[in-house]
Amino acid sequence: MSFADPLNEIVKGCGGGIGALLMGGDGIPIEQVVGSTVPTGPLSEDLATAGVEFGRILDDIRKASDALAGGAVHETVVVLSRFTLLFRIVDEDVFVVVVLEPDGNIGKARYLIRRQLSAIRRNL
Amino acid sequence: MSFADPLNEIVKGCGGGIGALLMGGDGIPIEQVVGSTVPTGPLSEDLATAGVEFGRILDDIRKASDALAGGAVHETVVVLSRFTLLFRIVDEDVFVVVVLEPDGNIGKARYLIRRQLSAIRRNL
Repeated sequence: MSFADPLNEIVKGCGGGIGALLMGGDGIPIEQVVGSTVPTGPLSEDLATAGVEFGRILDDIRKASDALAGGAVHETVVVLSRFTLLFRIVDEDVFVVVVLEPDGNIGKARYLIRRQLSAIRRNL
Repeated sequence: MSFADPLNEIVKGCGGGIGALLMGGDGIPIEQVVGSTVPTGPLSEDLATAGVEFGRILDDIRKASDALAGGAVHETVVVLSRFTLLFRIVDEDVFVVVVLEPDGNIGKARYLIRRQLSAIRRNL
């Protein structure tokens, strides 16, 4: 089984899924899948750009969590006007990014990501 | 009506609410309320520290959104081991931070924040 299978399960199952990425902490995408609807603009050209831009922010969130004794970062959700981004830490160096349409089901996407985590970890 | 009333409505209503803050974009807290349960560690001493640490990250998220043509930042949710932080933009210079216990109800907190936004905006 490839990484594309669990990513596709998430994008197809969550409602309003635009795409999903498995990203290395070095900013290099490991796997990328796109759903049937991709909005116009920079995101349509390269979903990985979102992973790189926000990968840096996940590092900053880790540092802020250390300062607050908040423990490990598990998830981050960013709701923007034009799409919603969900980040789930897989391990220290790898995270999943899922992009949803503004009316996408965030709760279902979070559930599906959690459910596919073991399949992703098995392949790492 | 003060800002404390809508913040208390959120903290008491959401289940697992640790506290809530109304923050200025300059890193200065406008109002702060705490629930009945505050975890030990830096967060218990100063909830505002969380607002300041993550206020900078919200700025970075705004810049990343600009780079991706994602539009305005509405909300950010950060799930850490020891607590969950919800950020909701009120206007360009003001945001709400709500801190939940790890088993707190994120969906209900998001709903209550949205419902109290007009009360908060009326007082700004």
